[in-house]
Amino acid sequence: MKRRLILIGCGVVGQGFLRILVDKEEVLRDKYGFEPVLVGVSDMLKGSIMKQEGLDIPSFLAHVEEGGKIDEFPTEGGVTGLSSVETIREAEADIMVEVTYTDIETGEPAATHMFEAFMSRMSVATTNKGPVTLQFEELRKLARENNVQFRFEGVVLSGTPVFNLLEYCLAGNDIIEVKGILNGTTNFMLMKMEEEGMFYRDALALAQELGYAEADPTADVEGFDALAKILMLSNLVLGGDLKPRDVERVGISGISTSDVQMAKSEGKRYKLIGHARKVGRRVIASVKPVKLPLSDPLAGVNGTANALTFKTDLSGEITIQGAGAGKIETGFAVLIDVLNIHREM
Amino acid sequence: MKRRLILIGCGVVGQGFLRILVDKEEVLRDKYGFEPVLVGVSDMLKGSIMKQEGLDIPSFLAHVEEGGKIDEFPTEGGVTGLSSVETIREAEADIMVEVTYTDIETGEPAATHMFEAFMSRMSVATTNKGPVTLQFEELRKLARENNVQFRFEGVVLSGTPVFNLLEYCLAGNDIIEVKGILNGTTNFMLMKMEEEGMFYRDALALAQELGYAEADPTADVEGFDALAKILMLSNLVLGGDLKPRDVERVGISGISTSDVQMAKSEGKRYKLIGHARKVGRRVIASVKPVKLPLSDPLAGVNGTANALTFKTDLSGEITIQGAGAGKIETGFAVLIDVLNIHREM
Repeated sequence: MKRRLILIGCGVVGQGFLRILVDKEEVLRDKYGFEPVLVGVSDMLKGSIMKQEGLDIPSFLAHVEEGGKIDEFPTEGGVTGLSSVETIREAEADIMVEVTYTDIETGEPAATHMFEAFMSRMSVATTNKGPVTLQFEELRKLARENNVQFRFEGVVLSGTPVFNLLEYCLAGNDIIEVKGILNGTTNFMLMKMEEEGMFYRDALALAQELGYAEADPTADVEGFDALAKILMLSNLVLGGDLKPRDVERVGISGISTSDVQMAKSEGKRYKLIGHARKVGRRVIASVKPVKLPLSDPLAGVNGTANALTFKTDLSGEITIQGAGAGKIETGFAVLIDVLNIHREM
Repeated sequence: MKRRLILIGCGVVGQGFLRILVDKEEVLRDKYGFEPVLVGVSDMLKGSIMKQEGLDIPSFLAHVEEGGKIDEFPTEGGVTGLSSVETIREAEADIMVEVTYTDIETGEPAATHMFEAFMSRMSVATTNKGPVTLQFEELRKLARENNVQFRFEGVVLSGTPVFNLLEYCLAGNDIIEVKGILNGTTNFMLMKMEEEGMFYRDALALAQELGYAEADPTADVEGFDALAKILMLSNLVLGGDLKPRDVERVGISGISTSDVQMAKSEGKRYKLIGHARKVGRRVIASVKPVKLPLSDPLAGVNGTANALTFKTDLSGEITIQGAGAGKIETGFAVLIDVLNIHREM
């Protein structure tokens, strides 16, 4: 079945998603009955294009992969010059893929795009943490009122299943507690400090050299990145109503190689753990370094992998582990949301 | 929405499923729109009952939990004395829950129950390995022809997601390889041999004492149980057409404590690994003890836990870990299948 899509944001994730649509065209059509019609693309830096009959996806992708501007893509009948909001309003699409940059202070412009999409009775697939953190309740309400879907699998662990796992594989369970390794950079650093006895500053330098950490590593090493993720899990999975200031946050910058080695000699292992649990009607959340016994499933999570353990009432403890980032993985997070929207439309 | 169910087999798993229906009645109705109407129950040892208006599930469950025979459950208008096949044919149900005992040689009587259910245009939820191993293709074909669903989440890892994970969370991926810890008993024994230096025979005796291993432990320690599971994964997930004799099988009875300790001193860990992978158009599968590097996600799987790693083309390596057995966990496996049937009916 043909589904009309618009893509708002055409950077790494948007292109990763289009790459999958191209590479998997046959299997998506034959196995899942999904035939995408890309009716509009808009990007703040690269311009926009709209075409009601649909763009040729392989040639459009080749054009942007080669650095071409969107509004310079040669196609008959393509309308250029529309803003992102105009594109959403005019495109008459079924699904908006929203993968603009994340602004964690305001959620904009992604939040506005989503409000516009829902009012136009369009479902939304996104990996944008901003609106999912800041405007979640209003967005969910508006989506329900318009009888459309709001999906955001990729906001916590990228292509590793979290929200779809809960919805389709663990439905009926009461989720009591969530804990996990939510930041690959710090997990990599702690591993190097334990296995190779590296000093903190050398482990950080190596992580930066390998592209895991930014030049300013604060968001990773001080736990802000993990905090944003445990906050979403607290509110979206456990039904909390927490703000960032409600979450206890301790980074790994106070952990020395000798702390890590001491833990090792006790048969334990330091991990930066995001943790949220229901206590009566409240939800309590934290991000901090924890000395785990080696028997904990999270103790065995190595390198830059991420993992989450859900404590449930019927299924016991379920742990999922996988990559927490990556162009194709995040593109896949969009794809699975789009496929589930398609399935349930 | 009301859904008419029949339950064929009313032992541990069947009762575990009914227990969840009772305990979760409100959430199943309010959150998932699912209202079960139990129109028939049949068990080889305990008799059968059919009632078109539905049995009162809480009092029926209390009756069987106290050891009562099914056909002695006092209810007005209940029809007793029907065979399981007659129950399936007469009940006019939407969904059959098939949880009779597993016969891995013939698949019977479960296979017959399933053929009858599909011919009566009923969807099937089961945890029975027999028919899923032996009659899978015929069953799947018949279900498709009758436009009903065939679900069997619990056959490999009980309540830990496998097939639903692939269907709803990893759709669009090509699954290239599956490997896992598929037997909790041997995993427990190897852990005791490594951590406490126990001899094989003492670890086995402890596993038997704790109820993890049978008096005849052959199925566990010689790898037959794990073989049945990797065979299902080979054929159902990777599209193979393997028979048990096609799977290389080595148990753990040849592994000594000194082997385990030697591996430990090399920074490795013995695990009994079920492994299946695509090689061109073929699927190659094995069950055997493998010395894993500690960086492998499966190396950190402790105690009686089970785990599976899927190697995928888009999502990278995804590992899921959880319990591989248990009354409530297996009851949950039935529930999630029933809920997904309900969702997609």
